[in-house]
Amino acid sequence: MVRWKGLSPDEMRVLETTFWSAGASRHGMAERLGCSKSKANGLIAGLVEQGLLAEAGLQPSSGGRRAETLRLHEGLGVLLGIDIGATSLDVAVLRPDLSILAHHAEPADVRSGPGVVLAQVRELMRELLAQRGLGAGQVIGIGIGVPGPVDFDSGQLVNPPLMPAWDGFSIRDDLRQDYRAPVFVDNDVNLMALGELWRQQRSRPNFLVIKVGTGIGCGIVCHGEVYRGAAGSAGDVGHICVDQEGPRCHCGNLGCVEAMAAGPAITRMAVEAVEAGESAALARCLEAGGQLTAHDVGQASRQGDAAANRIIQRAGSLIGQMLASVVNFFNPSHVFIGGGITRLGPLFLAAVRQSVYQRSLALSTRHLEIHCTPLGGQAGLVGAGVLAMQETLRVRGVAP
Amino acid sequence: MVRWKGLSPDEMRVLETTFWSAGASRHGMAERLGCSKSKANGLIAGLVEQGLLAEAGLQPSSGGRRAETLRLHEGLGVLLGIDIGATSLDVAVLRPDLSILAHHAEPADVRSGPGVVLAQVRELMRELLAQRGLGAGQVIGIGIGVPGPVDFDSGQLVNPPLMPAWDGFSIRDDLRQDYRAPVFVDNDVNLMALGELWRQQRSRPNFLVIKVGTGIGCGIVCHGEVYRGAAGSAGDVGHICVDQEGPRCHCGNLGCVEAMAAGPAITRMAVEAVEAGESAALARCLEAGGQLTAHDVGQASRQGDAAANRIIQRAGSLIGQMLASVVNFFNPSHVFIGGGITRLGPLFLAAVRQSVYQRSLALSTRHLEIHCTPLGGQAGLVGAGVLAMQETLRVRGVAP
Repeated sequence: MVRWKGLSPDEMRVLETTFWSAGASRHGMAERLGCSKSKANGLIAGLVEQGLLAEAGLQPSSGGRRAETLRLHEGLGVLLGIDIGATSLDVAVLRPDLSILAHHAEPADVRSGPGVVLAQVRELMRELLAQRGLGAGQVIGIGIGVPGPVDFDSGQLVNPPLMPAWDGFSIRDDLRQDYRAPVFVDNDVNLMALGELWRQQRSRPNFLVIKVGTGIGCGIVCHGEVYRGAAGSAGDVGHICVDQEGPRCHCGNLGCVEAMAAGPAITRMAVEAVEAGESAALARCLEAGGQLTAHDVGQASRQGDAAANRIIQRAGSLIGQMLASVVNFFNPSHVFIGGGITRLGPLFLAAVRQSVYQRSLALSTRHLEIHCTPLGGQAGLVGAGVLAMQETLRVRGVAP
Repeated sequence: MVRWKGLSPDEMRVLETTFWSAGASRHGMAERLGCSKSKANGLIAGLVEQGLLAEAGLQPSSGGRRAETLRLHEGLGVLLGIDIGATSLDVAVLRPDLSILAHHAEPADVRSGPGVVLAQVRELMRELLAQRGLGAGQVIGIGIGVPGPVDFDSGQLVNPPLMPAWDGFSIRDDLRQDYRAPVFVDNDVNLMALGELWRQQRSRPNFLVIKVGTGIGCGIVCHGEVYRGAAGSAGDVGHICVDQEGPRCHCGNLGCVEAMAAGPAITRMAVEAVEAGESAALARCLEAGGQLTAHDVGQASRQGDAAANRIIQRAGSLIGQMLASVVNFFNPSHVFIGGGITRLGPLFLAAVRQSVYQRSLALSTRHLEIHCTPLGGQAGLVGAGVLAMQETLRVRGVAP
């Protein structure tokens, strides 16, 4: 295993800079570090010799000599990334440059509590490591996303509405029994935002990631960093009111956007459309599968089903209404939307955009872009890997 | 005048640190700079000798030896702080430690355009400097707050709804004709936030300042810095919808909080109460003064007038409803409220709090504090001074 302890602050900065600018030329390193080329080359040569950095082949030519790129050396060890959703579980073994060595996804019910879910996580971690001939000793950092508010410093869940059995539970302490590597836990949508920040190499300092699945949450990137708020609950946009006369939410208030436009509300609207005899397509889906999902509504819409289109329009419009408030307040450059709701298809994004552009101020939306998350379904998993590597470097960097 | 050019980056950091920790002991400087005590003492001695730093007497004793405090030396020159409101104008001459040398406030109508208002500003600046025996040459930095969105880099106003005649106008270029000192322009409520950040010596990294006057705006402090957004329009909360069936706002949408709870809406509700014969107290005010203000409504409320209480309750509840969305999203530690609305009195703040605590999530409000701005009516002016000094140090620090 690698000896971190002898590394200087300058060497740690080269490793961190390489991690955050994957595929960048080694010739840009001096500029990014703010030091001379000869100093940068010396640091890089030393780290290559120690087996911490690797030269990753050549960048595509832009006319002149092709430049060598750098990446973190796989000899550093591997990362474990875990994305716990309300109804699903993703586990991956990643190299330090976040390329995936092994990955498995399966259904899971977060409500069954930490004992059951973490046993499933442990088993998957063991299996995936074994597949690649690796053991716990090769793991250098573990990053985990959960669908609830996390106190980032203690790694504990705090009053998580979708996973009440986890309240006050420390995943970090639990996994410490099996792995010597540090464990870092964050909210799932914060990790989607972190993954996106890494993907675009920190080039956009102020953007939002909205996840709409069983609940609705928002990851905030501000001044180039994930913003968690004074008590770690920033981005809790699911309980913003979009209709004072709306239905009662599980939080006790009326007309929360989560109660009216997240996954369960879409399923409910689809079942109501079937019961009212308004959609033959959705009725067939319900009969065949016994239930209806966002995916079914999206498929019916693509076949021209009017009821499905109306449901998508309504969900998009309500989420856009909530986003309009958030855009007026935060003035982000981009809003990325992810989670199960994206299965509703392109009409959904169009309805969101229309609603935001209508309700937000011209200056706030002049350069605003609204898209699906570029990392798609892997945003949370990539974010878990970024958390693991970034925090491992930080912890090692300050350790004595 | 002071020669800035010969100063080292370390010396600039001592000046900046002193500015942001007014009244702090010189013994804390080494820690704040992250250097040795002997290095800090050397830097301080050099700056005292050059007439840039002054020893500001002794801190109140906490038992042991009383510690000397530091401040920026008045030999550096003076700052001009200008707070342009929708209907008022404040100009001050300040020392580099932001103590006020001269101050004047008078009514002004921002709608009369830059020609008229800036002539008024120029005249006041000249008079106040002359009062203290100073000339334009002694001014080292000018900070100006305006009630509209500003492109911070160019210093230009962008589509300002309350001051349309100023669209695209550069106050900075205009004042450059009279003063050699750099001119910095920002939105008024951003400056209130900056003033508050300075007052508490950057001890709270994530808070909001809400100004309710003719319009409603929000200053955002995130990660210890004022956050302006991707296009400079962050904090534009006045057009967040609080009632889909509400009255039409000048922005074109229905039910914006600004249309329903800012100064003009309060005046309208008060006049309606008089017309409906619901308030003898407000009727007397209207007859005596020819118009009604937030101050009148506050006074009637303190005399137990039921109609005035109802108006205050309604305005506070609507502003609290808007704030609940913002608090769920941003999870600030503090919300400070300023502007003319604070003249409504303590019932207003109680109504705001009740509405926020009812609608926001428990985790977001567990440690949330909602108060009037501690700097009161001077928050904008102090913020203009902070902008002037901070940006002057920054500009001088990077100049060749």
